[in-house]
Amino acid sequence: MARKKDSRPAGPQHSARLGDLLRVPAGERPDLAAYPADALPAGPTDKTAGVAATDALGGRLAGLQERLYAASTAGDRRRLLLILQGMDTSGKGGTVKHVIGHFNPSGCRIKAFKAPTEEEQSHPFLWRIMRELPRPGEIGIFDRSQYEDVLVARVRELVPRAQIDRRYEQINRFEQSLTEDGVTVVKVFLHLSYEEQRRRLLARLDNPDKHWKFSPGDIDERALWPAYQKAYALALEHCSTEAAPWYLVPADRKWYRNWAVSTLLLEHLEALDPRYPRADFDVEACRRRLLAQEGDEPGHSGV
Amino acid sequence: MARKKDSRPAGPQHSARLGDLLRVPAGERPDLAAYPADALPAGPTDKTAGVAATDALGGRLAGLQERLYAASTAGDRRRLLLILQGMDTSGKGGTVKHVIGHFNPSGCRIKAFKAPTEEEQSHPFLWRIMRELPRPGEIGIFDRSQYEDVLVARVRELVPRAQIDRRYEQINRFEQSLTEDGVTVVKVFLHLSYEEQRRRLLARLDNPDKHWKFSPGDIDERALWPAYQKAYALALEHCSTEAAPWYLVPADRKWYRNWAVSTLLLEHLEALDPRYPRADFDVEACRRRLLAQEGDEPGHSGV
Repeated sequence: MARKKDSRPAGPQHSARLGDLLRVPAGERPDLAAYPADALPAGPTDKTAGVAATDALGGRLAGLQERLYAASTAGDRRRLLLILQGMDTSGKGGTVKHVIGHFNPSGCRIKAFKAPTEEEQSHPFLWRIMRELPRPGEIGIFDRSQYEDVLVARVRELVPRAQIDRRYEQINRFEQSLTEDGVTVVKVFLHLSYEEQRRRLLARLDNPDKHWKFSPGDIDERALWPAYQKAYALALEHCSTEAAPWYLVPADRKWYRNWAVSTLLLEHLEALDPRYPRADFDVEACRRRLLAQEGDEPGHSGV
Repeated sequence: MARKKDSRPAGPQHSARLGDLLRVPAGERPDLAAYPADALPAGPTDKTAGVAATDALGGRLAGLQERLYAASTAGDRRRLLLILQGMDTSGKGGTVKHVIGHFNPSGCRIKAFKAPTEEEQSHPFLWRIMRELPRPGEIGIFDRSQYEDVLVARVRELVPRAQIDRRYEQINRFEQSLTEDGVTVVKVFLHLSYEEQRRRLLARLDNPDKHWKFSPGDIDERALWPAYQKAYALALEHCSTEAAPWYLVPADRKWYRNWAVSTLLLEHLEALDPRYPRADFDVEACRRRLLAQEGDEPGHSGV
């Protein structure tokens, strides 16, 4: 549904949609090592401008969210699901804080997926995902997602390779169904460089107030960097579909990441163009009834 | 737990805690008709100052929330639950938007309770409440709550009076248990005047973009105003306990409501005084390991 609307003629202020620029072409394996994680493919070119541009989007994002929610009260089933993936410290949590913070929190359904519990493991891998989907009118945010089952599962060889290959297709069919049910799926890969990850991990070690965010296991995972990059490239190649494309966001600069994800959300919400529903009641009659109710509290008039 | 800490000697900047001023004394029935809903019992006295004061609390609230969450990663079970109750248009949703918006959305668990579903009705009335409680480190927000079962249930006579009376006690025991498990329960009654509700409902009718927030049923409920005020007064009388007191917030002025709820949250979070956990790993060893990992991506060095 979203893709169809996305392909409408670009409006004046969207002569170049960021989504078109960042979308991973279907079936193409991105060369992540060759793509600089500090690139600025479009938009602001320095931090001051970037922060200002992102702040300026806040009101528009919140307004579109309210309209999306309002429309759902009249039966519009559309909703948006933002999927955030990326290596440790790539800024999944920071994106939630700084980008999703623009929205009314009551319309957001946020889920950070951890290592699956025993119950979750006893079900198909999409089971726990299904349970956390946004309801109509909501904006869902997944910090990690079904893609962990083709990322860490591949790198750590938790399941046979053939099963990983089947999962790409299972994910594609799942996302196709979501799209058909009115979910606009926005999948963002936060592309971080190996060197920037080192800087961020060291920064966490340098600040005792950040130690809780650190685990020695992060260093073990980092040692598997090439295997993870390969797993990401494969997931992007196999699962960037017409129904639910992947967007590759350079994430070495936090301000650029925030601007890019905000802009991607804005473009998708504008394409949805949700509308406030019209009243299904007699507005004038209601106004008259309200005005006719006693002027003071009934039972307390004059007291 | 919270109450114990609340009774510590007041610090210099809390010579008068707002909570002490707004708390409904246990066992006392507040005279809501006599309490002006546009009162300014403490704090800022005009909108400009109120908005500025509330904005100034944002950073402190977010900082305390992060510490609360961080502490939970090291086993601290404490968490906060804000319960918002009030008549239609009293600003429960607006409070979530403007006050909870200060927090990192990923640490908030927000639930708006509607009329119970068939499944919910087949369970004890606290069943659906239990399922939505915040996890350790989180801030839970209930827009309506278990109190609906002694408010609308009383006014609409959904259950016999004797059962309503038992529910007050069930709620008190339930909240006592929550408190013992580390939940700081902050219950806020948004006190709105009959006349201000009329203005807000008319404003919704005057703006087609707000019609989705209006239902003719709101006028029927409004006709039951005295019965609702009585039901609220009884709930506040019976359920403002040492473990989980009720706070009465004058809500006719939105800016004052936002400031008051923000301040109540701040006072409770400061009383909890959550701390970043200390590292349970060897920081220096981790730093050395990180610095020893190859300078460029392993497998891509120099390419």
